[in-house]
Amino acid sequence: MAKINEDLLKERKKCSFNTAELTHLLDGGKDKTLERHSREHFFLDDPELRSKIPLEYLSHKEKYEEAVRKSCILFRKVQELQEAGKGGIENFREILGGQLGSAILKDGNPLTLHYVMFIPTITGQGDFEQQAEWMHKAWTCSIIGTYAQTELGHGTFIRGLETTATYDPKTEEFVLNSPTLTSYKWWPGGLGHSANFAIVVAQLYTQGKCHGIHPFIVQLRDEETHMPMKGIKIGEIGCKLGMNSTNNGYLGFENYRIPRTNLLMKNNKDGTYVKSPSSKLTYGTMIFVRVVLVQDCASYMKKAVTIATRYSAVRHQSEMKPNCPEPQIIDYVTQQYKLFPYIAMSFAFQYSASWLWDIYNNVTGELESGQLENLPELHALACCLKAVGTADCAAGVETLRLACGGHGYMTASNLPSTYGLATAMCTYEGENTVLLLQTARYLIKIWQNKKNIQNLPTVRYLDNALFNNRSYEKSVSWILSALQQVAAAKIDLANKHINDRVRQGKAYEDAWNETSIELVAAADAHCRTFLLDIFNLTVNNFQSISPELKAVLTDLLELYAVHTAIRMTGDLLRFTNTIGKDVEALQLWLEELLAKIRPNAIGIVDSFDIRDEVLGSALGAYDGNVYERLFAEAQKSPLNHEPVNKSFGLYLKPFLKNNL
Amino acid sequence: MAKINEDLLKERKKCSFNTAELTHLLDGGKDKTLERHSREHFFLDDPELRSKIPLEYLSHKEKYEEAVRKSCILFRKVQELQEAGKGGIENFREILGGQLGSAILKDGNPLTLHYVMFIPTITGQGDFEQQAEWMHKAWTCSIIGTYAQTELGHGTFIRGLETTATYDPKTEEFVLNSPTLTSYKWWPGGLGHSANFAIVVAQLYTQGKCHGIHPFIVQLRDEETHMPMKGIKIGEIGCKLGMNSTNNGYLGFENYRIPRTNLLMKNNKDGTYVKSPSSKLTYGTMIFVRVVLVQDCASYMKKAVTIATRYSAVRHQSEMKPNCPEPQIIDYVTQQYKLFPYIAMSFAFQYSASWLWDIYNNVTGELESGQLENLPELHALACCLKAVGTADCAAGVETLRLACGGHGYMTASNLPSTYGLATAMCTYEGENTVLLLQTARYLIKIWQNKKNIQNLPTVRYLDNALFNNRSYEKSVSWILSALQQVAAAKIDLANKHINDRVRQGKAYEDAWNETSIELVAAADAHCRTFLLDIFNLTVNNFQSISPELKAVLTDLLELYAVHTAIRMTGDLLRFTNTIGKDVEALQLWLEELLAKIRPNAIGIVDSFDIRDEVLGSALGAYDGNVYERLFAEAQKSPLNHEPVNKSFGLYLKPFLKNNL
Repeated sequence: MAKINEDLLKERKKCSFNTAELTHLLDGGKDKTLERHSREHFFLDDPELRSKIPLEYLSHKEKYEEAVRKSCILFRKVQELQEAGKGGIENFREILGGQLGSAILKDGNPLTLHYVMFIPTITGQGDFEQQAEWMHKAWTCSIIGTYAQTELGHGTFIRGLETTATYDPKTEEFVLNSPTLTSYKWWPGGLGHSANFAIVVAQLYTQGKCHGIHPFIVQLRDEETHMPMKGIKIGEIGCKLGMNSTNNGYLGFENYRIPRTNLLMKNNKDGTYVKSPSSKLTYGTMIFVRVVLVQDCASYMKKAVTIATRYSAVRHQSEMKPNCPEPQIIDYVTQQYKLFPYIAMSFAFQYSASWLWDIYNNVTGELESGQLENLPELHALACCLKAVGTADCAAGVETLRLACGGHGYMTASNLPSTYGLATAMCTYEGENTVLLLQTARYLIKIWQNKKNIQNLPTVRYLDNALFNNRSYEKSVSWILSALQQVAAAKIDLANKHINDRVRQGKAYEDAWNETSIELVAAADAHCRTFLLDIFNLTVNNFQSISPELKAVLTDLLELYAVHTAIRMTGDLLRFTNTIGKDVEALQLWLEELLAKIRPNAIGIVDSFDIRDEVLGSALGAYDGNVYERLFAEAQKSPLNHEPVNKSFGLYLKPFLKNNL
Repeated sequence: MAKINEDLLKERKKCSFNTAELTHLLDGGKDKTLERHSREHFFLDDPELRSKIPLEYLSHKEKYEEAVRKSCILFRKVQELQEAGKGGIENFREILGGQLGSAILKDGNPLTLHYVMFIPTITGQGDFEQQAEWMHKAWTCSIIGTYAQTELGHGTFIRGLETTATYDPKTEEFVLNSPTLTSYKWWPGGLGHSANFAIVVAQLYTQGKCHGIHPFIVQLRDEETHMPMKGIKIGEIGCKLGMNSTNNGYLGFENYRIPRTNLLMKNNKDGTYVKSPSSKLTYGTMIFVRVVLVQDCASYMKKAVTIATRYSAVRHQSEMKPNCPEPQIIDYVTQQYKLFPYIAMSFAFQYSASWLWDIYNNVTGELESGQLENLPELHALACCLKAVGTADCAAGVETLRLACGGHGYMTASNLPSTYGLATAMCTYEGENTVLLLQTARYLIKIWQNKKNIQNLPTVRYLDNALFNNRSYEKSVSWILSALQQVAAAKIDLANKHINDRVRQGKAYEDAWNETSIELVAAADAHCRTFLLDIFNLTVNNFQSISPELKAVLTDLLELYAVHTAIRMTGDLLRFTNTIGKDVEALQLWLEELLAKIRPNAIGIVDSFDIRDEVLGSALGAYDGNVYERLFAEAQKSPLNHEPVNKSFGLYLKPFLKNNL
């Protein structure tokens, strides 16, 4: 085993709490930790799942080929686990989306949508016969599917999709067409060259009439040769900021015929068109995906903060005092300010995601029995949590990357790829601004009619928060009360501005649009009260943890609260009775908390217990051998495998000699 | 010529001013515009300078080889221009760093440092004989050099460098050594496999005594074979977030001997060591580089905002009103809020950079005649402008990228690479937090002794800004006065907190460190007053421009002012007599300005007059054929050149068939 860096050894001795206790708490129990370790061992210690050359040195095409190789091995191993009775939802979640997945396939998995979208859609939207026909093939992976909805010209607004599926009663077939360039399917993962089947969402036409969008099962490629079927125009969409192994594809149809029975029929009977009993049911899936994204936010944040915190303890730079040795950069307060708030934030995300997950499970139970009352509240909350979580996560990862200076810019730090994954979340599964406006729409509705508000746990604070007006005290409870007042005041003001504009003669939709900057801000503020509330409740409800751990969690809770409050200074001064002196007190409290967390910083990130293979970072490894690892990584560059590159003879030498 | 998108045609008709007038104003006159066009034609219309396959599809090694090919052609063309008497500093600036450079070599140029650092250092630090020996070779490119200062373990703090150059009087040589792994040179562009010479900065030892860091000319590779010299350990540092063609390298020495005369001698006579008359002279170069960076900020911002604004005029999405067609996304106020402030900001950067450039030229004249009084002020300003400019630029480019939704994530948008270049500026040439603290140190010094403050144009407002207290009025002048009061109050408060801590018995350095979050914020606020001040002065001083253009520039100035003020709401409420009602008025003013700029948005970005090759973006081209271009770009992917990738036969088919 490699020698551990001296600075890290010292840091670990300073830690005031038992890191294993925190690890188990975060995993949900010691048995869960062990289960995770065993899963990590099963995948990460398999030499077949390692790459000979780091992906970043390969061509785009080679990256894809390596990703297919690994994906097939991964899926085979998942099947092994299932056959051994060890396959639970955690396996899919972890391997396809979580830390494990991104450890093995740093730049994405081209087959993910098979499990994440193809199979769930057949289960959710197929009728009994269809499930019988398709589920066995899909579940055993004798076919590989993806989910094609988004088009080149149409994202968020799915009613605008242009792909058509026209029923031909003579042959009992649907004829698929892409009437325009903008109607080409664009973005689905694995669509380019990997999947041979897809769920395709298209406008259904029968008897000359459009019946809106519906999902169809469509074969894309021949099962033997993998050649695209006749009438199918297909390929990949090209390079992206990140996720370059996901093989995102495009798809166009030219009079492509599929059997009538390929229209997913759970909500359609006997060929005559029946509207789905509640289109709200599909909200369920959207909420589920957003819960997963908030969990991913927590996990990317933990990864990035582990890397940056360990690096900051190992890196020495500059002089704090004349003629003293260069200090660890973690001792600069400005550096602590870049690191510790994100440690705290990762807890806030994790706890909110858990809360949402529990509620989601309750509500889906209710959904199946037809109760839909709680859905709008849950949907509004999931929208803003996804938006705020992903935005804060991306900004946080980037702050942490920049906090590592030049070395953070290197691929070997793994911070650039982590950012690539994190920032993508801001756009997919609902663009953040669009989502915040959805939350705002709910909040304005509630604000205008508070009748049932006491039955709605996430918004009931709005009932009287406008009048909280608590004088400053150094407590999380004061901050929460102030934030709630801010959220209420912002909703109230936005509502007033909409009404003002309507009174001035504007259409409600125009008034809404003109007020939308404030509406977004109101939804954001609402979300932040929720995040703090849940963090606070969670920490206060822990019963059987040691006082040492409780103290650390309380520090983090307070840091999260103070950091949020300081970022919202303008709102506090404007909408609550906070005064300048209170802001000064908050700033001092912040500085106090940074100092308090300083000795435990390494201990806390150690507790996240992220394996080196998952961190994938020369800067963040447990042993802290930053420079040795950076140097070793550089040696893997194929350019370094020969002393003189051929471009010297081809271009440089003729140029230099010509100038003699 | 391609058909122009209908939406853009309509937008261009709406424009209220003459776009050519603004283009000429921005270029500095019609003749400068023509000069730029001719330079663009000379480089961009050369078919040799195009790549057959977009760089992003190549392997890391192939990217490098293609970059060397292009760099050699570029340099040859620069020589052509020089020989024709058309070589001015603009050519170097534009081709090596500016928009032209990044159009031809999107991912960086491996030979840049030859002109940017190697030649200037010999000129600045070499004595007469050394210039005679080296300048001809360097200037004619019969050798290619780089500049090796930063080490694996040492960045900002150059006194901490570890590489040693020990004088051996017997042979009259210096012996270079890398005593530790952290002493390896790390980062210099072109060092990996391109340059055959370098300026190396090392600790000079004679007679057992260290005399601090000095620059040496060092041969790295054989001029004929390009093989590394014996005693030289050299290679590239590996992949990065961006700039993957710059061939950043590492370099270690093992008893590598160079002649005594390779120590750059301008400040050393006859082998006996003489300390440089003013180490402040080197500040000149640092200031120069930072001016260039602020100009680059303006130019990246213009590029990104042109792309995002045009795309927003072409893209239609969602429903604003029921049963109406999908609106252009530029009509959503939240979208305008993501775009227009960055249009305005690009002007603010450009004007501040011009101001700084003029002053720099004045001051360097003074420097050469030994006057150094204005240097600290200028240095403090350059530090904060670089920090605030690059941070705002990177954040702006990223906001603009996200404003383009999924398509902004595609390499074909050119926004990811632009971000890669922009964010790198936050770290190199002085890490931003370090720079803001340098500005803060100057501000605190001035604050403690205001004796000469009236002679210092960038800080004299501090003399009485603490008491501005102007009641709100809807004017740029009010905002400026309020921002100045904020800056003064923040400096005052930080100063007070340092003093408080010293009084509590802390060492000054510790007190400084503990107050550093506030110090950074104070320097940031100071910088923002400067940016607004110069923008305001510049627009008000334009004499001979048309009233239509003046109106547009005034809208942009006001938007910049209001946007800055709203971002600093907390500070305004805390430190000035702004009240809640005033913030509401600012918000309304902001919304009014967005609406006013809306019809001119396309006209303004058209005036930036950035060629399609420079934009390099499927989303931003002048003709607005966004979807056709995205589709055409995708066809360039080598993966799309064959219907079935070999990974099907190798991995996927065996996996699928095994599951039948």
